[in-house]
Amino acid sequence: MARTASLSGFPEWLPEERLVELHVLDTLRRIFELHGFSSIETRAVETVGQLLRKGEIDKEVYGLSRLQDDEGEAGNAGTAKGDPHALALHFDLTVPFARYVVENAGYLAFPFRRYQIQKVWRGERPQEGRAREFTQADIDVVGDGELPFRYDVEIALVIAEALNALPIPDFLLRINNRKLAEGFYNGIGLTDTAGVLRSIDKLEKIGAVKVAELLKSELGATEEQAQAALKLASIRTEDTSFVEQVRALGVSNELLEEGLNELEQVIAAAVQRAPGKVVADLSIARGLDYYTGTVVETVLVGHEQLGSICSGGRYDALASKGSRKFPGVGLSIGVTRLVSRILSQELAKATRSVPTAVLVALTNDDSWGAAQDVAAQLRSRGIATEVAAKAEKFGKQIKFADRRGIPFVWFTDEEGKHQVKDIRSGEQVDADPAGWAPSAEDLRVRVLKA
Amino acid sequence: MARTASLSGFPEWLPEERLVELHVLDTLRRIFELHGFSSIETRAVETVGQLLRKGEIDKEVYGLSRLQDDEGEAGNAGTAKGDPHALALHFDLTVPFARYVVENAGYLAFPFRRYQIQKVWRGERPQEGRAREFTQADIDVVGDGELPFRYDVEIALVIAEALNALPIPDFLLRINNRKLAEGFYNGIGLTDTAGVLRSIDKLEKIGAVKVAELLKSELGATEEQAQAALKLASIRTEDTSFVEQVRALGVSNELLEEGLNELEQVIAAAVQRAPGKVVADLSIARGLDYYTGTVVETVLVGHEQLGSICSGGRYDALASKGSRKFPGVGLSIGVTRLVSRILSQELAKATRSVPTAVLVALTNDDSWGAAQDVAAQLRSRGIATEVAAKAEKFGKQIKFADRRGIPFVWFTDEEGKHQVKDIRSGEQVDADPAGWAPSAEDLRVRVLKA
Repeated sequence: MARTASLSGFPEWLPEERLVELHVLDTLRRIFELHGFSSIETRAVETVGQLLRKGEIDKEVYGLSRLQDDEGEAGNAGTAKGDPHALALHFDLTVPFARYVVENAGYLAFPFRRYQIQKVWRGERPQEGRAREFTQADIDVVGDGELPFRYDVEIALVIAEALNALPIPDFLLRINNRKLAEGFYNGIGLTDTAGVLRSIDKLEKIGAVKVAELLKSELGATEEQAQAALKLASIRTEDTSFVEQVRALGVSNELLEEGLNELEQVIAAAVQRAPGKVVADLSIARGLDYYTGTVVETVLVGHEQLGSICSGGRYDALASKGSRKFPGVGLSIGVTRLVSRILSQELAKATRSVPTAVLVALTNDDSWGAAQDVAAQLRSRGIATEVAAKAEKFGKQIKFADRRGIPFVWFTDEEGKHQVKDIRSGEQVDADPAGWAPSAEDLRVRVLKA
Repeated sequence: MARTASLSGFPEWLPEERLVELHVLDTLRRIFELHGFSSIETRAVETVGQLLRKGEIDKEVYGLSRLQDDEGEAGNAGTAKGDPHALALHFDLTVPFARYVVENAGYLAFPFRRYQIQKVWRGERPQEGRAREFTQADIDVVGDGELPFRYDVEIALVIAEALNALPIPDFLLRINNRKLAEGFYNGIGLTDTAGVLRSIDKLEKIGAVKVAELLKSELGATEEQAQAALKLASIRTEDTSFVEQVRALGVSNELLEEGLNELEQVIAAAVQRAPGKVVADLSIARGLDYYTGTVVETVLVGHEQLGSICSGGRYDALASKGSRKFPGVGLSIGVTRLVSRILSQELAKATRSVPTAVLVALTNDDSWGAAQDVAAQLRSRGIATEVAAKAEKFGKQIKFADRRGIPFVWFTDEEGKHQVKDIRSGEQVDADPAGWAPSAEDLRVRVLKA
């Protein structure tokens, strides 16, 4: 487990580690589908033009070029930077999803609920929790023209339920609202609200004193304005009492009121349906520009330095087709970040290293066919089974099972009498291939929290 | 369904089409795991040096470069062709798997059985059945030093079982053996066996007359030698009678005998365990160089022009670490090729377009919380449920469910009395959220053969 990836930033798991990742992916899928989200996948590549549609990207993007192609056809990275038709690997699943919605609007039923679990690529300097290739699991709801605010509440609850089902430590969704923040800044006379948000976003990194300096030097804020913005950002409540605390700051603004009301709805529902999992945290800004309301970041309690394991929010203008707008709200779970942490700190483990429950041993070299018959009977009842390839001594075949992590070995003697041995306990009992089954605990690999 | 991809060669599915693909992927995974294959994934990128390790690639490879990087760091495609450290997208899953085995040999239990279901990329000209981005599902067994031949037999049987479980037309595994072919060519005095194989590989495309010409003009074969090679390639039997037919050609060679014996084992087992699904077809050559024994191609009956939907074979020397060799045998299913065909010819369909079984309607705007409680109860019993976002007239909410393809709508009146309506039949009955369930047929989306 102390292996390092042969290419920095491109983690690969051993089979028993992959079982943990599969468990995470299966769990997310199960919860998402239970809530009526449809699976989609988008292609791994977008045109550079599409990726740049919302302005300069702050992500390191991988461009593509055909190795055998010297002639600068579309897709040649030599000209990628300047060529909007050049291809590049997607760096998140939101931008591709927005394109997908616009392209397929005529075939989708809105509000369209989708989940999307795929790899994304960013050429950033790798470090713990930040890989160059990693898996994200996104859910979004997108409306045609309008999207009721209730979906913001719902999305937060679905994600809390999904994270709660994973073998991870306690987590906390920190939720804010852009309208609230922007309305407040406007209300105190700071009009470059995007600039203020960018500075506030640095709070955890550089601290309040330096953020105040930034607000004054870069945005021309007065000391009073800077302190008011910082006061807002310091508000964090587990219930809806943030509303009073904001009101106590004495700022009046219509957008602020709208934001307060929205965030209150989210927190009120969360207090009831996901108690202890959600806080109103008015320091949350989110760097990216396209959010227009709810914004979310999520920390793993005790692993705060890992960064957010689930982020997102409401975007009212990411996707549009002429005058037709597709507002959406969504959250994205950093699966690889979570799985890396689970594995490196052994927070959870698979009960065995292979799917196989039973190895059918060979009595002699001619018994392979009969062994396959036994295996087929077991498999028909959902019991993962493999057949030994060589009629070695039984001791050797048992060792083989042990080395592979297979809990049961099946023996059939020359008279056709069947026995099965639990090689962990050594217990060996008569068994009928048409009826025997391992305990529910041994039937399938399970992943258990440490 | 008559949509075309917005980027040629990069297909994307609608949600109801994706359900078909998911069904195919889930089915393959289930069968592979029942046979004790472990899941792994490898990174999407390899170094160009790794991809070129076995000589010039006949695939069109996509190189990677960081868009923000002008300085020709490793990964810049501008220099990719010449730079073995440059990164490129993998074009199959066999080469990355071989690297993975070598890198992780100390952590794996051999013979190592793995399945791997991932996207691969080839910059070839797109056409029906050939995309630039597509999903492959591979199974391989790899040994440390040696690998009993029995795994060749097993792999063919597992794949036949997996394909048989898919919603596709009848299929036929066409199996040959390189030892048989090479031994035969040596036996008749043709020593450039790779060259002969390359010519024979063109049989279906250009016909016997032209292949004979090639053999004579390019490989210096006599008319007699050419005819003998063609005679061998014309042998195709559903049972082991090919052995006699080859022997009747009167060529004697040790390698030929070995190949005959191996292929006989595969076909004998298949006749018994996968009747009608496998033939010995001595025209099968496989273009790639690394096969050393069993070779397999698979046709969909009635869709032969689609090309092989599952190919592979035995490779004794693909992976090695110093003097340590890792022989393997594996097969690769072209998932995207299959799914494209299923969708374009409507060979199978999902029973509904969303995972959701029940929409909980809102009686009034305040009933959202109570509706969420009902939904949570249904979900706790595995019933996929969503809640309406707006308390519109019931007729509108039913229409919404209908438009999304949701079969049941749940109503709770102001006295708390629950009813559920099957909107297909119109039948509406009293229901208890703690006990009601749809029929097994409606519980989950199923994918049915047309």
